[in-house]
Amino acid sequence: MRARDLVSDFPTVTLDTPALEAARLLADRDLPGLIVVDDRNRPLTILPGTQVLRLAVPRYCQDDPALARVVDEAHADAFMRALGSKTVRECMPEQPRELAIAGSHATVLEMAALMARIHSPLVAVVDSGRLVGAVTLRALLDHVLAA
Amino acid sequence: MRARDLVSDFPTVTLDTPALEAARLLADRDLPGLIVVDDRNRPLTILPGTQVLRLAVPRYCQDDPALARVVDEAHADAFMRALGSKTVRECMPEQPRELAIAGSHATVLEMAALMARIHSPLVAVVDSGRLVGAVTLRALLDHVLAA
Repeated sequence: MRARDLVSDFPTVTLDTPALEAARLLADRDLPGLIVVDDRNRPLTILPGTQVLRLAVPRYCQDDPALARVVDEAHADAFMRALGSKTVRECMPEQPRELAIAGSHATVLEMAALMARIHSPLVAVVDSGRLVGAVTLRALLDHVLAA
Repeated sequence: MRARDLVSDFPTVTLDTPALEAARLLADRDLPGLIVVDDRNRPLTILPGTQVLRLAVPRYCQDDPALARVVDEAHADAFMRALGSKTVRECMPEQPRELAIAGSHATVLEMAALMARIHSPLVAVVDSGRLVGAVTLRALLDHVLAA
């Protein structure tokens, strides 16, 4: 069993997708994350759901729980709404990190180790660099538990 | 809007729950993670789905993609089945880390920052240390996007 056997279609966003639209896509379709592709359908990054949420949280609150605690609720709602004026481009992680991308020949174990290591509930599957689809944690667990 | 307003019932496991049963609970109910509680219903840790998956991946494969790549598929399936002989206790993270636990007075922003910071798609909500339920990334996004 390889990535190509577990892969399924997965919606994508681009750098120009409004952040609010990206967040709605995630919520409405109950996705584990989002795949950001370039104009040639090559994955640029994979954003787990928790990192899409990061788009809506002011940076100074992300690393300091005390600040998030003292910002009152009216302000918090305003911050959340600030999503609407950003695009995915402005929300990309600053530091490059290992990406949740695997070739179509990747083994189940390889994908499981990747998901566990980088905390990503989905892996983008590529063939010659182009996106084929995604393997979700759910699909992988279903396969493992049925084995 | 506070944690207590967004909280919902959430299934729990204990240290003695078989790892296989824990993984099935996650998959069958499509949960974003699991809450491990002690015998007084106090959360000991919160395992995001990707970290439950970690239970099934041999340690030497988790940090070395090359090893996961060369282990052939028959072996991989055997590793996955090894889940069946473990309990949650044997699968707990070794290093203590910030836990996805919030008090019932936590603000939406505080929970969002926590989820984003520690990559957890759920937060256990406690009152006087006892588990009340959980706020999922999904529930939080739904609230934020409806605001």
